Amino acid sequence: MSLDKNRFEKQLSFLVEIDKMKSVFRRTMLIDLTRRENDAEHSWHFALTALVLLEYAKDDVDITRVIKMALVHDLVEVYAGDTFAYDEAGYVDKEERELKAADKIFGMLPDDQRDELRALWDEFEDFKSKESCYANAIDRLQPFINNYKTDGYTWREGNVNKAQVYKRMDAVRLYAPELWPFLEYVIDDAIGKGYIRP
Amino acid sequence: MSLDKNRFEKQLSFLVEIDKMKSVFRRTMLIDLTRRENDAEHSWHFALTALVLLEYAKDDVDITRVIKMALVHDLVEVYAGDTFAYDEAGYVDKEERELKAADKIFGMLPDDQRDELRALWDEFEDFKSKESCYANAIDRLQPFINNYKTDGYTWREGNVNKAQVYKRMDAVRLYAPELWPFLEYVIDDAIGKGYIRP
Repeated sequence: MSLDKNRFEKQLSFLVEIDKMKSVFRRTMLIDLTRRENDAEHSWHFALTALVLLEYAKDDVDITRVIKMALVHDLVEVYAGDTFAYDEAGYVDKEERELKAADKIFGMLPDDQRDELRALWDEFEDFKSKESCYANAIDRLQPFINNYKTDGYTWREGNVNKAQVYKRMDAVRLYAPELWPFLEYVIDDAIGKGYIRP
Repeated sequence: MSLDKNRFEKQLSFLVEIDKMKSVFRRTMLIDLTRRENDAEHSWHFALTALVLLEYAKDDVDITRVIKMALVHDLVEVYAGDTFAYDEAGYVDKEERELKAADKIFGMLPDDQRDELRALWDEFEDFKSKESCYANAIDRLQPFINNYKTDGYTWREGNVNKAQVYKRMDAVRLYAPELWPFLEYVIDDAIGKGYIRP
């Protein structure tokens, strides 16, 4: 078979465009505190965390779909930027910015692949399927672990309080409940040390 | 069910340790030329490239296993470092360094997960199964695209010649053959511009 050049050009343009994920920085610090983490690294760490902690998923989940969601869940941030989890102002227009960005980034692909990857992103955002629920829990747990291992760096920086962390991490309590005692321990410890406001 | 603390501590230690992948730098440049790419970013880009270009795999492959290989294939570099694809001296003790590193990094996990992830790494390295062959082709194609889009940055830097690039990219010719005309075009163009020695 010969290559469909028009189709391949679209795929190539998409693969080139998403290189920009490596320059979208999050609040999360690397554990060695040398710099902040970017979206490409986070997506990889999220995917592998989902795989390693799969046994704690509340429901039987299709890990393939969870991992695919991890790979694409932040692609919109190439255009929409990262919104800090505890930035309430940033959340006001987050949805609108991200929907436009989703049209743009997934729209670079051939139609069938645009639909396939967009559906994964929509599913992740909808937070309804069991795969989405587990994926969202892990998306929150990965930076939580980095926070834990950096003496609450972004909690301190964001002057975050216990209620905010509980709200943010509720997905873990609901969808990976066996891990909740670990999170409670870390949060209580962080409050005791002044990293999270009571 | 209550959490098996000993088991979870192992999983957590592994997930913390692999954060170091974000500080293992490769020769490949980001397409915007701001800096080199690290292993975590490469692993993510590799996984998504494998997904998007799946239709060009010579054989029907299990994409789940390919993606899992992408996620773990460079973990040994946390200890063994990255060996430049065109560094023949570096390849002399690469295998020995990486085998020791594999024992160490996968050995942090509970035994069942150590075996599962190690098997994926072994399979990728063995370059025998159809999933491994396709994965290896994509592992080489992803930096090739970045090289193409940065006027042959690492080819020029490494003073690389055509025979070396052909040897390195032969996995694409064999296991994603429909893409080969694109690679030939890029290589010829790069030779014409002096980015690759004839």
